[in-house]
Amino acid sequence: MTAAPAQAPAIRLAGTMFIGSDAVTGTGPRIRSCDPRTGDELDPAYHLASSAEVTRACRLAEDAFDAYRDTHPEQRARFLERIAHHLTRATDTLVERGHLETGLPVARLTGEVGRTTGQLRMFAEVLREGSWHGARIDPAQPDRAPLPRADMRQRKIPLGPVAVFGASNFPLAFSVAGGDTASALAAGCPVVVKAHEAHLGTSELVARAVLAAATDTNMPNGVFSLLVGDGHGTGTQLAGDPRIQAIGFTGSRTAGLALARTAAQRVQPIPVYAEMSSVNPVLLMPGALADRARQLADEFVDSLTLGAGQFCTNPGLLIAVEGSDLDTFTAAAAQRVDSDSGATMLTPRIAQSYRLETEAVTTHPKIQVLARGTRAETVSGGQALLVVVQGDDFCADPGLQREMFGAASLLVRCRDLDQVSDVVRALEGQLTATVHTADTDLDDARALLPLLERRAGRVLFNNWPTGVEVGHAMVHGGPYPATSDARTTSVGSLAIERFLRPVAYQNLPETLLPPPLQDDNPYGIPRRVDGALTLG
Amino acid sequence: MTAAPAQAPAIRLAGTMFIGSDAVTGTGPRIRSCDPRTGDELDPAYHLASSAEVTRACRLAEDAFDAYRDTHPEQRARFLERIAHHLTRATDTLVERGHLETGLPVARLTGEVGRTTGQLRMFAEVLREGSWHGARIDPAQPDRAPLPRADMRQRKIPLGPVAVFGASNFPLAFSVAGGDTASALAAGCPVVVKAHEAHLGTSELVARAVLAAATDTNMPNGVFSLLVGDGHGTGTQLAGDPRIQAIGFTGSRTAGLALARTAAQRVQPIPVYAEMSSVNPVLLMPGALADRARQLADEFVDSLTLGAGQFCTNPGLLIAVEGSDLDTFTAAAAQRVDSDSGATMLTPRIAQSYRLETEAVTTHPKIQVLARGTRAETVSGGQALLVVVQGDDFCADPGLQREMFGAASLLVRCRDLDQVSDVVRALEGQLTATVHTADTDLDDARALLPLLERRAGRVLFNNWPTGVEVGHAMVHGGPYPATSDARTTSVGSLAIERFLRPVAYQNLPETLLPPPLQDDNPYGIPRRVDGALTLG
Repeated sequence: MTAAPAQAPAIRLAGTMFIGSDAVTGTGPRIRSCDPRTGDELDPAYHLASSAEVTRACRLAEDAFDAYRDTHPEQRARFLERIAHHLTRATDTLVERGHLETGLPVARLTGEVGRTTGQLRMFAEVLREGSWHGARIDPAQPDRAPLPRADMRQRKIPLGPVAVFGASNFPLAFSVAGGDTASALAAGCPVVVKAHEAHLGTSELVARAVLAAATDTNMPNGVFSLLVGDGHGTGTQLAGDPRIQAIGFTGSRTAGLALARTAAQRVQPIPVYAEMSSVNPVLLMPGALADRARQLADEFVDSLTLGAGQFCTNPGLLIAVEGSDLDTFTAAAAQRVDSDSGATMLTPRIAQSYRLETEAVTTHPKIQVLARGTRAETVSGGQALLVVVQGDDFCADPGLQREMFGAASLLVRCRDLDQVSDVVRALEGQLTATVHTADTDLDDARALLPLLERRAGRVLFNNWPTGVEVGHAMVHGGPYPATSDARTTSVGSLAIERFLRPVAYQNLPETLLPPPLQDDNPYGIPRRVDGALTLG
Repeated sequence: MTAAPAQAPAIRLAGTMFIGSDAVTGTGPRIRSCDPRTGDELDPAYHLASSAEVTRACRLAEDAFDAYRDTHPEQRARFLERIAHHLTRATDTLVERGHLETGLPVARLTGEVGRTTGQLRMFAEVLREGSWHGARIDPAQPDRAPLPRADMRQRKIPLGPVAVFGASNFPLAFSVAGGDTASALAAGCPVVVKAHEAHLGTSELVARAVLAAATDTNMPNGVFSLLVGDGHGTGTQLAGDPRIQAIGFTGSRTAGLALARTAAQRVQPIPVYAEMSSVNPVLLMPGALADRARQLADEFVDSLTLGAGQFCTNPGLLIAVEGSDLDTFTAAAAQRVDSDSGATMLTPRIAQSYRLETEAVTTHPKIQVLARGTRAETVSGGQALLVVVQGDDFCADPGLQREMFGAASLLVRCRDLDQVSDVVRALEGQLTATVHTADTDLDDARALLPLLERRAGRVLFNNWPTGVEVGHAMVHGGPYPATSDARTTSVGSLAIERFLRPVAYQNLPETLLPPPLQDDNPYGIPRRVDGALTLG
């Protein structure tokens, strides 16, 4: 085992959180991130936010709300682009510190900076395009009989301050300035982030970029805060604060459901967008296996072991009909898994959970181990695992659908395609569902498609689910328990709608109409007039 | 007191519910609607659905779901239009039976048939226009570096079977074939309605129209069922049935919150769209009062007493600055209320609740009674009431915001416009907020507008909130506790979105693409291609 790399001198971290633009050393207990390879604690130390500090961040966000939502969408677009600018400038620092705190490879983290800045720039374009206003105008009909019709106009307004809980597995793209923050800021909602304790230094660096951009673009103080805290105390208080009007979360099912409970029990319940867990079923159809069993095995193991398997969309479940083609696939996949050398997981605790989950599954009476890789020789070492179960046994035990967060997958071996259908029917909600086909499989795939789209937010053919493109058509969401709210996505431009609600204005004097609804359409945005869509 | 009008011989009611197309006499206890004027029970008797019958309706809905959602939108449009056709043909019968069961005036009910059929026809047009598909296409970029981009397409699919709980106060427009049913059917969701026990005969008649239309247009059996039942038993079972995927509800806060709890406690929680209660604040600005205090008083009392005050958008709260103009308004309004002769309320129980609520408010130590009308001399007689409280006292007691369902309103007398702001800030979520202004009030109104739009789904100027236009720009919704979900509306074309969720299709073979996403756009619908909106 090698010694922990020393803190690189170039990165100066203050060990603070940010309440609005104030750098604040918390007054709660001390915590540190650690190097997951060694378990060594990293400098600097941070301090948890006290209850008063959480309240102060929420108050500032509420105080900033009306001014922030009143900014021209172009101003918010520039704010988002400026965040992207500062993050890009800080790439080396972010990657270096991110690598230290998460063990994720440098190339992956470099790519993640690009993904995060690309996401911010996409929401800037969404702001300019303007469909998100949801502008609708039903003009007055003063002469209508028996009753005149009043002028009615509708637009969407932001919900209010949003609490964001970053994920451990994407320290940039799903964390402090990730998709939840970008879409909430785009919508006009101030954001209070609870930093993930696994990458506190990275969080501080990203928060500085956001706050520098806020200063550059004259955004009101309180538009963004970063709290250091734990889930039970800080997280629960933040979710329960009356000023917070929505929650974005990516993480475990346990933590997501706890947040949803807290939000539901408030005097005023609020929306919770929790992206929680998924085993991402992959159907290997008979024709595809006959065609290219070995290739599929290679692609599968690549997808399974990517990032130590720490993806929400990791292929944790394979479904196929037994036979010699499946045996070919299995043998090839098993060989690859057996020779896999493992990788460092995000934290010692995640590695420990993964160990317990895989131990439980391998001792399940109906499960056989097909292949087990080598455990990486670090404190947080992960180990690939491929296990198999018969279709009947899978359907009989819902516990076998539980996500193992890491490079583990369960192959469900089915008697025939009817049993494949039964297995799909037994599945709970998923982020993704994938089908590998040859041309001869298309009729069977057509029959499965309605089942799959009812159970997943994204259906893939002949691709692998890891890799979530940031675009306009992406859905990173899905039926419960994959998320707490299937009506939306946490990745892609549609995500902005999570933080908006419609308001109608009846007979509003012209001088009071908000710009998106003024007659001359000053923002030049698409609008629906008497039901007919008009481009801007 | 006159005797109950006999059942008109022209209306033949069977006393059944409908499980799919089967007319079923329930096997549970017997119930009857009553004539609210006399309290006399009406023929025929109905029987509550047994637990097995509720399950059967839900199963049929689930069985019908895939076939129903697979229908061409044009087929669903014709189904909705055919329901409108059958309702229109049954107008006389519906109005006669509706009048008997609800005591609502014949003219009002005749108008409500038109509103209900207009609503169904609007959703037919929404289906044809096609924006509801939410079609988005991000074409593949096979040559993109460093990684190619896969073809990604997104559309919205219906959630699944929907349970609808009709309201008592709109026996047609918010009941069996009302807005919830119309928008859910439009979305492609089968509907199971729990009939409101106050208008069972009307419900049976409407259900027959829906089922006749389903037969005419070859819709799958189970696309619609009507259950007779009570809230605690039938309603709770229906909301908890695993096949039900969303709930539409209009009614009391108690019942709405109970449904929301049931839905949240399911193994798989589901969305609840409960429109519950609102006092619909009306701000009378100083200039408006100076201009036209008497006219405002007349308009106010007209709005207050319309339909015995039994509107979700009834003006239950007036807010104004004290002074001689307000005194003029108050005197004129009090005179009108004093001379009001009352009206029969929807049911003896609703009249009883109203009596208790108004008694409680009139004995509140900080409340003064300004005027009280005559109670209508029927079993369910209602009585208009106008009471007043000082701004400080209102802000100090949140209990004074409780809705009194009926023709009662509370005037909050404020020291000055600052206190008007304070009162508005103290308000909980509302369906509507209204401002009456003269030109001299516009600057003050501008300052109040951000407060009002944060607290209401619809903001009106110089109109009255009763009267909810069915159109594209309407929002009949609002922040909790006006509804359980502020992100939507239960009236207007946007309501269809409540029952949809997005699904992304990655790299789907061309032959499997659903029509809204096929390259040649066979439905001719608006789509977003690489982020740019294109008309059909």
